[in-house]
Amino acid sequence: MTDRSPLAPPTLPALPEIAGVTRRVARARYKAWDRCDLTFITLEPATAVAGVLTQSRCPSPEVEWCRRALVLGRARALVVNAGNSNAFTGNRGRAAVEAIAARTAAHLDCDPSDVFVASTGVIGVPLPIDRAEAGLDAAYAAPPCDWIAAAETIMTTDTFAKVATASAIVGGHRVELVGIVKGSGMIAPDMATMLGFVFTDAAVTPEFLQKALSAVNTRTFSCITVDSDTSTSDTVLAFATGAAGNAPIEDEDSAGADAFTAALADLCMQLAQLVVRDGEGARKLIEITVEGAESDRSAHRIAMSIANSPLVKTAIAGEDANWGRVVMAVGKAGEPAERDRLSIRFGETQVARDGLAVEGYDEAPVAAHLKGDEIAIGVDLGLGDGRATVWTCDLTHGYISINADYRS
Amino acid sequence: MTDRSPLAPPTLPALPEIAGVTRRVARARYKAWDRCDLTFITLEPATAVAGVLTQSRCPSPEVEWCRRALVLGRARALVVNAGNSNAFTGNRGRAAVEAIAARTAAHLDCDPSDVFVASTGVIGVPLPIDRAEAGLDAAYAAPPCDWIAAAETIMTTDTFAKVATASAIVGGHRVELVGIVKGSGMIAPDMATMLGFVFTDAAVTPEFLQKALSAVNTRTFSCITVDSDTSTSDTVLAFATGAAGNAPIEDEDSAGADAFTAALADLCMQLAQLVVRDGEGARKLIEITVEGAESDRSAHRIAMSIANSPLVKTAIAGEDANWGRVVMAVGKAGEPAERDRLSIRFGETQVARDGLAVEGYDEAPVAAHLKGDEIAIGVDLGLGDGRATVWTCDLTHGYISINADYRS
Repeated sequence: MTDRSPLAPPTLPALPEIAGVTRRVARARYKAWDRCDLTFITLEPATAVAGVLTQSRCPSPEVEWCRRALVLGRARALVVNAGNSNAFTGNRGRAAVEAIAARTAAHLDCDPSDVFVASTGVIGVPLPIDRAEAGLDAAYAAPPCDWIAAAETIMTTDTFAKVATASAIVGGHRVELVGIVKGSGMIAPDMATMLGFVFTDAAVTPEFLQKALSAVNTRTFSCITVDSDTSTSDTVLAFATGAAGNAPIEDEDSAGADAFTAALADLCMQLAQLVVRDGEGARKLIEITVEGAESDRSAHRIAMSIANSPLVKTAIAGEDANWGRVVMAVGKAGEPAERDRLSIRFGETQVARDGLAVEGYDEAPVAAHLKGDEIAIGVDLGLGDGRATVWTCDLTHGYISINADYRS
Repeated sequence: MTDRSPLAPPTLPALPEIAGVTRRVARARYKAWDRCDLTFITLEPATAVAGVLTQSRCPSPEVEWCRRALVLGRARALVVNAGNSNAFTGNRGRAAVEAIAARTAAHLDCDPSDVFVASTGVIGVPLPIDRAEAGLDAAYAAPPCDWIAAAETIMTTDTFAKVATASAIVGGHRVELVGIVKGSGMIAPDMATMLGFVFTDAAVTPEFLQKALSAVNTRTFSCITVDSDTSTSDTVLAFATGAAGNAPIEDEDSAGADAFTAALADLCMQLAQLVVRDGEGARKLIEITVEGAESDRSAHRIAMSIANSPLVKTAIAGEDANWGRVVMAVGKAGEPAERDRLSIRFGETQVARDGLAVEGYDEAPVAAHLKGDEIAIGVDLGLGDGRATVWTCDLTHGYISINADYRS
């Protein structure tokens, strides 16, 4: 339906196998389409799991299921449904998740609480249990597939498959990480969701995996926005099979803990930026750095106020060096700021300093920077040491076409 | 440049004179355009004044000037510049405001602190003092003009002049109110501002006028949004000349205090909705009512979360009964909500109740409602008595064209 994003990476990275992870896909036909839409990933027994889930007060039953299952810290399988988010469907939606977990547990002879489930697509339509069960049975009987097939199967309105890899040396053992993600923003048209899944063969306790994932999430997935609309189904899960043979990472002092966390951060940053690169209608990737704030948290809020401003995003779309709109977005953020200490740069060019345009401001280098497809905006508040960087995309006619012309 | 909004009222109301108020306009040529852009309104000595100003942390020097002058509670003149907001211009911007107040005070033989100044237009360019002074002199020498000419002169990218009137009986005296407003949203392209000015011949103390205006503002101007972008220059000022001859309204117990406040609320509601009707690219006016929240404040925040959601606004633009996006916007608001108590209606049709679609939901009446140009969305949270109503417009290709294709 939609062309491949112009911001899509030209090539895909070579992806290693992760020992203990087997992928399969099938056609559950959640929508009237002829493509695989059910992903079934089996995991080595005793695989550790961690997750971060949407803050929405109206979460999907899948999110509620994962939140409960995460307490136990162990996973045997992940099932992802594309085309129907199953959100806001009451008891029938809950029953669908329970049926999927039960069917999967029967196939694998495990406990239903070892099964993690995520769904993405239209809100308000209960996931059809018969199709889910038939799809699961078909996937279980199918041959294993590669990472790309799995990344494609979890897509909805995404325009390209999003994968990334990283590695680390942990206690003398090389450990591999692979991640897949979908989403054309915090939410896609009629869909609800950014879903991300990370797999590693490292041995890590569920507790440390959760700690590392939560810390990494605040610097990666929590720092992207396409349209400010937070999904009912956002889910990032990390699975560690332990097959690499390293001594399990239990805390920050374990051998390789830092290297593992750094690799996880590298991986999640790649995945997060891929989501922005596939933002609905995106033509430009925008990196916004705020420095000199009273705290990192304050810097993050101001950066997000800029990243979510329709007027900043349309100015970038129009290649317009309209830095007054950045001033506006700083001013409305509700965070400490002093107009007469505020400085702004576009690319490498300082455009405003200490509350007004720089003397003899030359727009030519800014105009040249804005013609590119990777835009950098820097803000210095001049108040303290708080710092944050976030990523977004421009707001174009493409976004309106996708979301206003789409019929559910 | 832009066609008259299709949501503009077909006719203008008949506007009474307000004794003690004299309007004049002139060409200051703040931009390369051949139209009046300076409005000069003189007020009877001892006119009471009240105001509400932007919450932005990067306010314009005009906003800072008004904030200080409001403390004294008296006004002799209002000067409004269109085409340049003078925001983020450092000491040169402050000097421009001081020069305007001084020149006006010399003409009227009053104190500069009796002069109120507002400017709207591009951010970051100091207002040229020579043009402002020449424009003021020209206006002072010009014959008085009518309300419509004043309402047209304060416009920037507005597509129609926005005026309203109301009246009340106060202590046996009929008092008149007239208001003018400009803004195509909280902020217009490269412009910053909603400016609103209310004039009445009622006798009211500055203290009660401020109390009434602040209370009315929270139910009117604070309940509209076009694009979630808060201006550096938002200003609403109310002037009461006292020429009607009523005994001054001093507090809630004064004769006619309730009638006056009701008329002020009526007037401000008309003006606020006119701004939404001229929202950039607007094709539909959307009224969002949230009931059953834990508090009125919580209801307001949830209503604003819906009103500012790009996905809700594009769904309405596409005449798509996509109520799942309303669920999403409730969920992300950060306010108390319980998915399984949530009910939603479009127009008169209940679409979801207690956390899922209504049994046998028929989309036909909803689709018919969405084809109109006034859309109502109702949400019942089922938690308490909190209630709020807000107004916004749809998000269309027109918004992108105005803001991305515009070159500062």
